[in-house]
Amino acid sequence: MATKNLQLNQLTGEKTYTEIVFQKVWGRVEAYRKTHPQQKIFMMAFGDTTQPLTPTVVQALVDATNRLGDPKTYTGYEDITGNPTLRKAICANYYQQNLGIKLDPSGIFISDGAQSASVNIQELFAPDNKVAVQNPAYPSFVEGTLLAGRTLVNLICDEQNNFVPKLPEEKVDLIYLCFPNNPTGAVATKECLKAFVDYAKSCQAVIIFDAVYSPFITTPNIPRSIYEIAGAQECAIEIGSFSKMANFTGLRVGWCVIPEALTIQNTVPGELNHLWRIRHAVKFWGTANISQYGAIAALSSAGQKECQEVVNYYLQNARLLREGLAEYGLKCFGGVDSPFVWVKAPQGLSSWQFFEKMLQSRGIVGIPGCIFGSSGEGYLRLSTLGQREEIVAALENN
Amino acid sequence: MATKNLQLNQLTGEKTYTEIVFQKVWGRVEAYRKTHPQQKIFMMAFGDTTQPLTPTVVQALVDATNRLGDPKTYTGYEDITGNPTLRKAICANYYQQNLGIKLDPSGIFISDGAQSASVNIQELFAPDNKVAVQNPAYPSFVEGTLLAGRTLVNLICDEQNNFVPKLPEEKVDLIYLCFPNNPTGAVATKECLKAFVDYAKSCQAVIIFDAVYSPFITTPNIPRSIYEIAGAQECAIEIGSFSKMANFTGLRVGWCVIPEALTIQNTVPGELNHLWRIRHAVKFWGTANISQYGAIAALSSAGQKECQEVVNYYLQNARLLREGLAEYGLKCFGGVDSPFVWVKAPQGLSSWQFFEKMLQSRGIVGIPGCIFGSSGEGYLRLSTLGQREEIVAALENN
Repeated sequence: MATKNLQLNQLTGEKTYTEIVFQKVWGRVEAYRKTHPQQKIFMMAFGDTTQPLTPTVVQALVDATNRLGDPKTYTGYEDITGNPTLRKAICANYYQQNLGIKLDPSGIFISDGAQSASVNIQELFAPDNKVAVQNPAYPSFVEGTLLAGRTLVNLICDEQNNFVPKLPEEKVDLIYLCFPNNPTGAVATKECLKAFVDYAKSCQAVIIFDAVYSPFITTPNIPRSIYEIAGAQECAIEIGSFSKMANFTGLRVGWCVIPEALTIQNTVPGELNHLWRIRHAVKFWGTANISQYGAIAALSSAGQKECQEVVNYYLQNARLLREGLAEYGLKCFGGVDSPFVWVKAPQGLSSWQFFEKMLQSRGIVGIPGCIFGSSGEGYLRLSTLGQREEIVAALENN
Repeated sequence: MATKNLQLNQLTGEKTYTEIVFQKVWGRVEAYRKTHPQQKIFMMAFGDTTQPLTPTVVQALVDATNRLGDPKTYTGYEDITGNPTLRKAICANYYQQNLGIKLDPSGIFISDGAQSASVNIQELFAPDNKVAVQNPAYPSFVEGTLLAGRTLVNLICDEQNNFVPKLPEEKVDLIYLCFPNNPTGAVATKECLKAFVDYAKSCQAVIIFDAVYSPFITTPNIPRSIYEIAGAQECAIEIGSFSKMANFTGLRVGWCVIPEALTIQNTVPGELNHLWRIRHAVKFWGTANISQYGAIAALSSAGQKECQEVVNYYLQNARLLREGLAEYGLKCFGGVDSPFVWVKAPQGLSSWQFFEKMLQSRGIVGIPGCIFGSSGEGYLRLSTLGQREEIVAALENN
């Protein structure tokens, strides 16, 4: 008789991040609202975008829609690994022109966002692989590892190491690195990433590099892609997304780079790339064609200029919030190369105590750091992907 | 050191369906074109739609785009299980109004198409589950089962059983049923489906019912949903899609029904539904919001009327092709409740011999039946999701 997948089942005892955020965080806010109907609430919990799609993207979506509505220009299934023009644009406009990195479009797989790509990529690897994840981390890396029944190894990120982990002390197979980091907003230097690349190459581990927040980097000489490090194409998969850099959270377009040069034990160059192509053909037939046309427009020169303005808007939000909170004596990390401000709880408060304090004193709602892992205890993550007026009003709300 | 997923690896020795179609079928056509540049080619191989999005859908996509481009109406992430209005419309307009079936929106999960939903759903179940699949079958059911390392049990579909399989002779856990069938175009009666539901309930197996081609059913009293059978909500998952009924192949919107009542060994009602919700939250954050707005429009009363006209257009294609080929003495199945015509190879020709004969004598390109499984040997699948002019010209091409 049919039986449950015990691996999926492992998580049922605990709540997932999404459930905790919606039930516990949102639940507490709702309860507070009832008892304090006069208090203004400033929602800085969710990493959701709030600025509209840019004019170039809007025009591209309208044009694509009209083509799909015309019998002469209608197209059905998109290429399974993604629109070829989009894959070329990611190589030419994003990697080559912006970052000076040469990648072949054959290594680019268009995804329906970084969330699914970064978790599903584990399917390429054997179930007994050990997975190292930063702590605190974007929760799906942890949850995806547990769902797959793999062993999790924590890479502690704290104030002492500037939220950039040391190399794993035990032998691991897969290493999730996310820079600029969600939730801490920390960035990694070239030297740091080189150490991880050297480690990975020395023991044939694979780095899964989440570069979703790269367009937010403002600090000079901070790498925007793992492929800025020599040799990384042999040991690293990179995950990118249009979600935050072009307000595409709802449109669902990201990408995953699996270079031909990437190899692990008993594989030849191109083999992992080919395996992922098979996985696409069987388990994923690509994201919406119309969204992909929007992404092509976002990578045009006009599109990139508009998107950079949006990123700058969010970064300005982050600067205001960071500086404003500092004036109130709070110690803030992040918010320079990232839309996330990672605020230290004062006076030894716990994450949840600080959450309550910020809610009650200023109406600011963040995510308690402990939800991102044990090393997040004592912090609060604030997202500045919201409206400027909200940030300003929150800081003026005494 | 990192090692490959052996389950994914199982398939690398063989080509996937997609690769075979593109390399072998397409390769032979290209080779033939070179030596016979005068011969017209009529492509009936791919199950890809060719008719444009309908006016109601186009308007909805333009409206959604404009909302996303306006700061006052912009929205970011969609609900992880799908747009709530769409989930309600699937219950109210598709199931209740059209089919008289009562389902709760909590059981509806919006997917990025039937392909991924029908394969990924296996993740709910234990790796050692036995999976019964019709033979011939839509190849992803087979490939998804092999990728997951599960045991495959063939349910033979042939002329003797009207391409509707008998109950499994050995005990299985999961049963894929696809009606109207791809590739054979066969449909199943209520009695047949009731036998499968009774079997599933008797041994706590789960039916995964692919109902993608339901809107093509014209024969009276043929069920359009497994839920027309009493008790099916306790043992069946249904997969639906907007791909073929609304020309959404590129837009990627489908759905998956996991009723609260569905249980297997050691589970309580609602538990599998909840597990799938967790899987969405960790491994899939939904399909494009804009496509979902298009789907809502397709289920409006104007949208449904327009979509039915498109379905009728394809069915008329199927009738013309079926009748035309019959005039040439070919025995055809399907094409009545389905856009697929399943043509028997004459004179004991193999699938590939018949493929060559149809290509060389008429320029018609189909998919050799053997690609869909051993019981497909001796047949050719022709898709009538193409243009009317092509069907007519192909029949006139002597």
